Amino acid sequence: MKIGKQTLEFDKKPKILNTSSVVGPKEAEGPLSIYFDKKFNDALYEETTFEKAESKMIMTAVDTLLGKIPTDNSTIDYIFAGDLLNQCIATGYAVRELEMPFFGLYGACSTFVESLILASSFINANYGKKIIATASSHFCSSERQFRLPLEQGTQRTPSQQWTVTACGAALVTKNDNSFKCPVVTYATVGKIVDMGIKDIANMGAAMAPAAFDTIITHLEDTKRRPDYYDLIITGDLGTLGSKILIDLLAGHGIDISTNHSDCGKLIFDIEAQDMHAGGSGCGCCASVFSGYIYELLKTKKINKVLLIATGALMSPTSLGQGESIPSIAHAIAIENEV
Amino acid sequence: MKIGKQTLEFDKKPKILNTSSVVGPKEAEGPLSIYFDKKFNDALYEETTFEKAESKMIMTAVDTLLGKIPTDNSTIDYIFAGDLLNQCIATGYAVRELEMPFFGLYGACSTFVESLILASSFINANYGKKIIATASSHFCSSERQFRLPLEQGTQRTPSQQWTVTACGAALVTKNDNSFKCPVVTYATVGKIVDMGIKDIANMGAAMAPAAFDTIITHLEDTKRRPDYYDLIITGDLGTLGSKILIDLLAGHGIDISTNHSDCGKLIFDIEAQDMHAGGSGCGCCASVFSGYIYELLKTKKINKVLLIATGALMSPTSLGQGESIPSIAHAIAIENEV
Repeated sequence: MKIGKQTLEFDKKPKILNTSSVVGPKEAEGPLSIYFDKKFNDALYEETTFEKAESKMIMTAVDTLLGKIPTDNSTIDYIFAGDLLNQCIATGYAVRELEMPFFGLYGACSTFVESLILASSFINANYGKKIIATASSHFCSSERQFRLPLEQGTQRTPSQQWTVTACGAALVTKNDNSFKCPVVTYATVGKIVDMGIKDIANMGAAMAPAAFDTIITHLEDTKRRPDYYDLIITGDLGTLGSKILIDLLAGHGIDISTNHSDCGKLIFDIEAQDMHAGGSGCGCCASVFSGYIYELLKTKKINKVLLIATGALMSPTSLGQGESIPSIAHAIAIENEV
Repeated sequence: MKIGKQTLEFDKKPKILNTSSVVGPKEAEGPLSIYFDKKFNDALYEETTFEKAESKMIMTAVDTLLGKIPTDNSTIDYIFAGDLLNQCIATGYAVRELEMPFFGLYGACSTFVESLILASSFINANYGKKIIATASSHFCSSERQFRLPLEQGTQRTPSQQWTVTACGAALVTKNDNSFKCPVVTYATVGKIVDMGIKDIANMGAAMAPAAFDTIITHLEDTKRRPDYYDLIITGDLGTLGSKILIDLLAGHGIDISTNHSDCGKLIFDIEAQDMHAGGSGCGCCASVFSGYIYELLKTKKINKVLLIATGALMSPTSLGQGESIPSIAHAIAIENEV
């Protein structure tokens, strides 16, 4: 049911039964490397184009996920999925091979949490038994689409983030009380927030106000205090956006400086890998949650997580037409059952 | 709950409380003109770019819808929406102004039914009281993005369809039995079907097998006969795709020749307006349903409709890389309560 202004309460507590992650070369060299299921060290992933490589990541992530259960594709009721590419082609071609009933999503870098919210909503309403939520991004397919040709070797600005090459996937299932698993308790669906930022090399600043808005709303709607959560983790605000978020919340008397982190900060060793403001892309939040955070939950190192994925909904066309960057953030609360 | 392979049964029978439609110049000259709420006769709709014109269509459609209830934006729990543009910018910038919790969708021309299914699923599960489903397309923003610059004045092939300039929006609400309204009873979520068509000027042929697959599945899952429906209406197969669909179904002993129609055939006077294979685009199904079909239901000229929107999930990039056109079709059953 809906509570407060924008929050869904999942009384049936859908389980995240398992997750999987597939990452590319830079991510495999990063500090979370050991947590990812599959790594490849060639950006083309043995395909002929970066777009096909991204499709292969998605198929591999889903195959890996199903292999862990184990189950096969025909038992999956629905897949909610999306990516950053024009017309979400990485997802479209992957799902063609997966042969599952499909809801296509576009939420830019907020897509993974959008898909988790919808999958959880469906499971909670008994619309299926096994539903996959997934999202992906690829540095090479994104860079040439959103910014400049890779061959140009353009220098990157200090505020710029590096689109993560990764896919994360989660299997959401009915809570049959058979064994304990991380469960989904609440989700806060974001509104678009746009503070007028037009610099595509400063996405963290564009998206931080959306994260702020959704977190404030989530806390009000659920009547939870920020210290309820062991971890409040944003998808890909990076170093600059994270600082802005913490400052914005502090201005409203909310201190998340001790329990906040950001997937875009965790996935790379920012200094050593020269990653400027950190990672971004829907694959960032998807893989860091599915690889690392889920493991922390399973091993009870943490028990209560608020995951907030932020998305910047502009395109090169809209920016070329003088528009600013509209941003959105969706939040989902994932907790160990006690 | 889920029944059969891919179908949702909505036991709470969500109401489609009202709809609205906004169309551009060619659609306003077509045979359904009198059914549309708002028409504009300049493709730019008093904006500076076609993309901004498309955003304005969406805002106008939603404003018109809310004006009919009447209610204001703050009472809307969620909006499910999408369009054809890269990163769905028409929708993103429109929803920024509408200030509603937002789920972004990409289903190509299947988006309107995808959004109606999700809105109905949410209402049926009591996740909200008032949810908007909408989708749009614009000939000028699509043509230059998917095909060629408009200024080039390229000759169109006989199989080509004309992307409709239109937006349709529907308000789905809880069924409180207060008065009779068209209600949503079933939805069949499509799988991707790809028979290898690579010709972007023959989308009807690419999408017809997906419609076939979803219709067959819908009939099996619901145990309904095709003649149960007064109207089985596809989104935008156009003249060629419609013929292929009827033939494919006839080959399986299913005759829909007397109760099938297609939004892409209805929206234009194909001969007089020189529309080749008819209309297409997410706005086609959205506006024809929201303008015309909904009126037929309200006035009881028909009582049982199966609406199937088909989407072609390719991009210019994927076609350039030698890929074929993956297609999907989602079906929704909308009926008058007896």
